[in-house]
Amino acid sequence: MTLIDDTATLPNGLTRDEARAEAARAYELDRAHVFHSWSAQAEIAPMTITASEGCHVWDGEGNRLLDFSSMLVNTNIGHQHPKVVAAIAEQAAKLCTVAPQHANAARSEAARLVAERTPGDLNKIFFTNGGADAVEHAVRMARLHTGRYKVLARYRSYHGGTETAINLTGDPRRWPNDHGNAGVVHFFGPFLYRSQFHATTEEEESERALAHLRDLIRMEGPSTIAAIILESIPGTAGIMVPPPGYLAGVRELCDEYGIVYIADEVMSGFGRSGKWFAIDHFDVTPDLLTFAKGVNSGYVPLGGVAISPHIAETFDHRAYPGGLTYSGHPLATAAAVATITAMAEEGIVENAARIGAEVLGPALREVAARHRSVGEVRGAGVFWAVELVADPDTREPLAPYGSSSAAMNSVIAECKKLGLLPFANYNRIHVVPPCIVTEEQAREGVAILDRALDVADAALG
Amino acid sequence: MTLIDDTATLPNGLTRDEARAEAARAYELDRAHVFHSWSAQAEIAPMTITASEGCHVWDGEGNRLLDFSSMLVNTNIGHQHPKVVAAIAEQAAKLCTVAPQHANAARSEAARLVAERTPGDLNKIFFTNGGADAVEHAVRMARLHTGRYKVLARYRSYHGGTETAINLTGDPRRWPNDHGNAGVVHFFGPFLYRSQFHATTEEEESERALAHLRDLIRMEGPSTIAAIILESIPGTAGIMVPPPGYLAGVRELCDEYGIVYIADEVMSGFGRSGKWFAIDHFDVTPDLLTFAKGVNSGYVPLGGVAISPHIAETFDHRAYPGGLTYSGHPLATAAAVATITAMAEEGIVENAARIGAEVLGPALREVAARHRSVGEVRGAGVFWAVELVADPDTREPLAPYGSSSAAMNSVIAECKKLGLLPFANYNRIHVVPPCIVTEEQAREGVAILDRALDVADAALG
Repeated sequence: MTLIDDTATLPNGLTRDEARAEAARAYELDRAHVFHSWSAQAEIAPMTITASEGCHVWDGEGNRLLDFSSMLVNTNIGHQHPKVVAAIAEQAAKLCTVAPQHANAARSEAARLVAERTPGDLNKIFFTNGGADAVEHAVRMARLHTGRYKVLARYRSYHGGTETAINLTGDPRRWPNDHGNAGVVHFFGPFLYRSQFHATTEEEESERALAHLRDLIRMEGPSTIAAIILESIPGTAGIMVPPPGYLAGVRELCDEYGIVYIADEVMSGFGRSGKWFAIDHFDVTPDLLTFAKGVNSGYVPLGGVAISPHIAETFDHRAYPGGLTYSGHPLATAAAVATITAMAEEGIVENAARIGAEVLGPALREVAARHRSVGEVRGAGVFWAVELVADPDTREPLAPYGSSSAAMNSVIAECKKLGLLPFANYNRIHVVPPCIVTEEQAREGVAILDRALDVADAALG
Repeated sequence: MTLIDDTATLPNGLTRDEARAEAARAYELDRAHVFHSWSAQAEIAPMTITASEGCHVWDGEGNRLLDFSSMLVNTNIGHQHPKVVAAIAEQAAKLCTVAPQHANAARSEAARLVAERTPGDLNKIFFTNGGADAVEHAVRMARLHTGRYKVLARYRSYHGGTETAINLTGDPRRWPNDHGNAGVVHFFGPFLYRSQFHATTEEEESERALAHLRDLIRMEGPSTIAAIILESIPGTAGIMVPPPGYLAGVRELCDEYGIVYIADEVMSGFGRSGKWFAIDHFDVTPDLLTFAKGVNSGYVPLGGVAISPHIAETFDHRAYPGGLTYSGHPLATAAAVATITAMAEEGIVENAARIGAEVLGPALREVAARHRSVGEVRGAGVFWAVELVADPDTREPLAPYGSSSAAMNSVIAECKKLGLLPFANYNRIHVVPPCIVTEEQAREGVAILDRALDVADAALG
């Protein structure tokens, strides 16, 4: 682990001793009073984070870690970007909040900047607090626009934690929340490495997955289906980049059957894949697009729905029956304005694309070739999955679907020991550093992962 | 309207001409790109807010308005409180965000300060982005804790805009979102002025409303009911302060039948009613308590659920199946720490109580006595409703339930013309200034309302 000098201060100005004392107190109060997401509360020992800068975070001991998690694939612009920090302080001093029915300069400008970047004719922005409520509202718009109820979503997906969003989710976290009445039908999407369709090429996988979706639509009844929601590149579920033609085929099916196409870009948007939105890789325009995270790198909670004119018109003279107090929050949208502007000025999306094509992709493929435990690596930009297997031939995952394993835990622990904070999900390590990651940092992170994977190889016996 | 001098600058440093230019641009972009909450998009003309301070906001013309709306009953500490603004800038410079699985000093301290104030043994805090997702998660906890599905909620209530929250809501905004499958049963709560129970005293109303609730529980099947959710004082639905004994009676019913009691304090909490939580007026401890808004006056989006030990324990060794990227966001929780600390140091909750008891209550009762259009005034702290009627004898509302009317619109327009920004809902004007409102400001606002109500009286013919 990259230890810092005992006498040095952290980027936030704390000495290492001060940071330790703050972290000890934070941990104690956390265990007494904080209830954590997705956790068995008595079985966790959260790492305290006291400082962050660029692609690094500092833990409660003052150790510096290379952040290959981006804090849940969130801080695309890196930690503590000075322009965004300054914009937050400036907007806070000017005007922190207004009610959603009023207009405000920060919100207006953020809407303009987002609309300028969303694909095709998506031109109106409904701001929410995060990704889950963005998905909730997108589904509501689709249901009211079509007058239909059912929504199709894929297995191996994540769409958020609130009632509709978690029921759309194709992941075991849905199970305890699924009472069979959310109006969601799940289908299998393309995933060649674990193909449902017995395909052997990407082209075949794409074709067969589309045929499967068409049959499912016909069996469910096209006139009952309000929307199909798809992460343009599924994120936490495994970063399965869709094969050529798949998303265009989904667009055609939606057009044919009058179904609303919702692109969920909460994790894949704002530079993560090397383009502003992952769907830009495929030249497809959805009817609704949900975003959060990267829009302001999570510096202030913000999400939203970008809306096509034909759906927006539905609510021109009919009240949209949804809203929230913090919709288009001035502080959150000012952070988005600063983030998008800095990303454009500094070529941050282009950096993510270049790092993916020239550094992470080639380096991870070399890692895959060196380790029997790596079944596949896949991704784009700074959005990569390393799929670990207990058996390279049967492709049995190194941890069961929906669970963990001793081998996976060892790999993660080894990464941390060597100074790398990874993102892990079931049998996968995701390589998801901030979009500002340098070539040197990317190589350093992959080198650590390379060493840690020896532990996984050992587990294969 | 209180016009400011053309040469004067606004609190944010803009000259009036600069503010006008900013507002014109903000309005233009708003109409081009912003999709607003709860609105028919082509039928609104949002007022632009360019600056705010204390109990005032400035519109796009540079006019100063006395804010008796608190921006959706949100900015309890007033606008641009210097200690909260400074805390936001300080935390932004230090550490804007971490992922929810990590621990962080700002979050830990906010959890401690909230837990210290929540009633009884509520001691663990699950942070969300706002009130709606707080309610979503509270219901989820109740369902998993009890193994039951149904939730009881009252008519004339508001619980939020996401799927479960809007279906709990007893308000016409639920209707377009109600597909009959949310597992919610609505009941009538106490509201003597429009009693469902033919009661003539508060005591009778309380008793009969409890008997009604008990019968409803028995008819629905106690063993099917996970939770009862109640705003401790219903907010947007009409600020109907519960009669003596009602909430204690609900607590007893919940205990008797093993039902989780969820107190929704999103609008009524953090000083609004003259106590930290409205339920504190009634000496009742719920099992779960939801909050948002006042926790940091909405300066940064934040909400949460306070959890009793017996429910928290359910998730000690069983993963809680819910979460969100921004849970316990450092910037949002740092704003909560500063807000709660300043409110305590400056006696802001006590101010709200005193203003309610000594100024707003007496003054509004005088207003009621002077105007035939006022059916009733009711409230506590800085949380008052003025119920307007077209006929004082039949109590016919001045606008139909779920709608507006020319008479109501005229009253609201007259308030704004005279320099007061009111909160209106159907046939009611709510008097909900920040908790820091001074006696002079409270009297000024009521005096404007007094004048505006002449318009309502005139509508009665």
